[in-house]
Amino acid sequence: MNEAFSTQGVVSMSEERTVSQPAERRPAPSRIAALTVEQGLREMEAGKLSSEQWTQACLERIASRNPVVKAWVYVNADKALERARLVDREGRRQRLDGVPLGLKDIIDTADMPTELGDPEIFPGRRPAEDAAVTRLMRELGVVLLGKNTVSRHSIMLPGPARNPHDPSRTPGASSAGSAAAVADFQTPISLGTQTGGSIVRPSTFCGAVGFKPTIDTLPYAGLRRYSRPLDTLGAIARSVADLSILFGEALGDPRFDSELAVRRDFTVGVWRPLGWDDAEPCVREAFDDAVARLQQAGVRVKVLDMPKIFTQIADDHDIIMAYDLARSFKEIRRDHHDKCDPALLEYLDKGDRDTAQDYARTLDLADACRRAFLDVARDVDVLATPATLGEAPDVSDTGSNIFIRIWTLLHNPSLTLPIARGPRGLPVGLQLVGFQKEDARFLYWARCVESILGTRVHDV
Amino acid sequence: MNEAFSTQGVVSMSEERTVSQPAERRPAPSRIAALTVEQGLREMEAGKLSSEQWTQACLERIASRNPVVKAWVYVNADKALERARLVDREGRRQRLDGVPLGLKDIIDTADMPTELGDPEIFPGRRPAEDAAVTRLMRELGVVLLGKNTVSRHSIMLPGPARNPHDPSRTPGASSAGSAAAVADFQTPISLGTQTGGSIVRPSTFCGAVGFKPTIDTLPYAGLRRYSRPLDTLGAIARSVADLSILFGEALGDPRFDSELAVRRDFTVGVWRPLGWDDAEPCVREAFDDAVARLQQAGVRVKVLDMPKIFTQIADDHDIIMAYDLARSFKEIRRDHHDKCDPALLEYLDKGDRDTAQDYARTLDLADACRRAFLDVARDVDVLATPATLGEAPDVSDTGSNIFIRIWTLLHNPSLTLPIARGPRGLPVGLQLVGFQKEDARFLYWARCVESILGTRVHDV
Repeated sequence: MNEAFSTQGVVSMSEERTVSQPAERRPAPSRIAALTVEQGLREMEAGKLSSEQWTQACLERIASRNPVVKAWVYVNADKALERARLVDREGRRQRLDGVPLGLKDIIDTADMPTELGDPEIFPGRRPAEDAAVTRLMRELGVVLLGKNTVSRHSIMLPGPARNPHDPSRTPGASSAGSAAAVADFQTPISLGTQTGGSIVRPSTFCGAVGFKPTIDTLPYAGLRRYSRPLDTLGAIARSVADLSILFGEALGDPRFDSELAVRRDFTVGVWRPLGWDDAEPCVREAFDDAVARLQQAGVRVKVLDMPKIFTQIADDHDIIMAYDLARSFKEIRRDHHDKCDPALLEYLDKGDRDTAQDYARTLDLADACRRAFLDVARDVDVLATPATLGEAPDVSDTGSNIFIRIWTLLHNPSLTLPIARGPRGLPVGLQLVGFQKEDARFLYWARCVESILGTRVHDV
Repeated sequence: MNEAFSTQGVVSMSEERTVSQPAERRPAPSRIAALTVEQGLREMEAGKLSSEQWTQACLERIASRNPVVKAWVYVNADKALERARLVDREGRRQRLDGVPLGLKDIIDTADMPTELGDPEIFPGRRPAEDAAVTRLMRELGVVLLGKNTVSRHSIMLPGPARNPHDPSRTPGASSAGSAAAVADFQTPISLGTQTGGSIVRPSTFCGAVGFKPTIDTLPYAGLRRYSRPLDTLGAIARSVADLSILFGEALGDPRFDSELAVRRDFTVGVWRPLGWDDAEPCVREAFDDAVARLQQAGVRVKVLDMPKIFTQIADDHDIIMAYDLARSFKEIRRDHHDKCDPALLEYLDKGDRDTAQDYARTLDLADACRRAFLDVARDVDVLATPATLGEAPDVSDTGSNIFIRIWTLLHNPSLTLPIARGPRGLPVGLQLVGFQKEDARFLYWARCVESILGTRVHDV
């Protein structure tokens, strides 16, 4: 039904530009459901909004949209409202008190089922304990709305969630529900994870701001484990500032300051990696356009040449993932073989063929790339690179992670900003990459880039 | 009583040299209690040793020595033997099945009390759940012997544990019991943590091999939290190979190969940091002697000059720790003020005076040091630097962490090897430092250094 827009080309989503809308617009959210974390906090702090109102607005949006978008496998409406009312009654004591938040359904919750993206294998599974990050979120005072849909087997296979911009299109994998729910104004923020491209890809396809921090920035304990060197817990929101607020509170690090004045005197490194030529024109045009706009705004742009090992490592990510998946899915393959997707089994077979030597050699190569990155990128503040090969494919495919997975293996923080629309009216993203452990500074530069390109997902 | 040895000077502990013994030797352990993890595994694999025998030997050593060394606050004898017998009955399936292990008592255990180093404040505290690492250790099949003593308030204040070489001397802080138990052959290995110098310092004073990996290598969830940018979970053993075995199993990373042939064609960076001139002669002599012996063995030695910011960052570590402790001890200070040591309260007051700006500036400086380290150390394989200012002081003092804490803040893996004895007959260590995230490679180089210097704690 969006074919009518196939000749539209790239349309920037920046505020300065006119945004063309798809033919059948999704229903607009309520004013409250559309609030970002930053906006909602400001209203709550000014006494103009209660946590109950905010939570209720999210729950209403979920109720009206879940039949189509299927971004939630479990909604804890009663307990969410109970928590919100408690915050309203007792008063807010911490910055995140009363903020609605979703959790990818591979994150254990003692008061909600956690089916790990495998409802056939773990139907109604009830964890005895919260995951470490669930506990942390409760300590920070958030309102846990429920659990976001995960793609099949919680890997790259298509699952039930749909792209909120067009239900015939994939939301991506595997943090599909987290990205779709946020982009569709069903929650201002949700936690997701990335082992290949599982935060940045769905966030790009759905038009959200997906952030994969440096690995182990948030604790992974109590989450479904796929691959120790890859599994990274992160978050998806509708602005960079919201991510800065969440991580500042979670880490107690004052450098995550979402109100620091933005600058334009910084340097963006530009890298067009292997796969660039295979990207759809809308991706290449949006990327080049974004770089041009940054330059026009006064940002220094430096085109980077990565060493040859960076080409190899993007492919070798698969060796780590397949090898580890063959081990982490061992019991499932043995006990639930009939419930396993043939594509999963094929991938696990590949993992069985990879040897410990292949695995070790690849991790060594990743170490070398980490050191090389610091040399190549030493004069830039933040790296810009494409996020996906194109707009979201149809629901039979979750898209490629070729531009994304390298940063999962190298552990650099990465983030996607929705910067344009493609010919189908679907979002196109720009991926930013930062330096390891420098997540606060990375989010600051990302906010500077966002302030120039204009990336809020306000087009419903 | 060890004064008689004050003129002994430095005596190497390498196998090629004669080791002088203190006047009153501690009682020798049984042959089985003295086994390293590697040796015990070899005997179990050959059918010459059962897990029950090994566990029993550790429990006997604990029973005879705990009244003096006080390295355990809780010993789970019955459950340990039950686990060991189960392994013996059902057969070993994983590499670490049946290996005895201790846990620092800030690591939550659902089947043992966890008093967090504060028995007056948390008497008999029973956690509802295992910490993530406790669960991991159980999954790996180890025998959990019990909980190791922590220094007072689990910080740098003296606690009940004693140095196994001389009970009038401190074992160091805060993983005091873990280091003392391992060095005294009461367990082959124990988990400890480091926020300042809490693994490397007690391991050095007690004569064990203490390893602080890259931060977040092992999951910290479920441990007493002091400071997010500093808290690091590690392990203490009696050989580098044992640490390699444990981490290889814990991470599923085949690069932790404890049997790879050692080499001598590598480069050691040598850094004599600020404080070098304040170190006791035995430390400087042992260090220079170790460097000379490495050179004689064919190892390339490169003296490194660190940039000036490295001098500042060693002091600034205290800003991070005090600021965070003021926050993590907030409830304790409020609710248990009368049970707080005056030195703790003074430190927390300092933390209250440090501002968010001081804190942020220090973390920024740490980021700069991390990048600078890669430049300065790029041509070396591993860095050698002193571990402590001297031998273990008397029990009123836990010693300085000036040479150690910088690596906690910078997140580099670090390790101490017992390389000599000082004039009191107490161990003197050599600290090795590696590159972030390259822990497997670091342990390999540490094993190469160990093979030249000879570091097994075989002198009882």
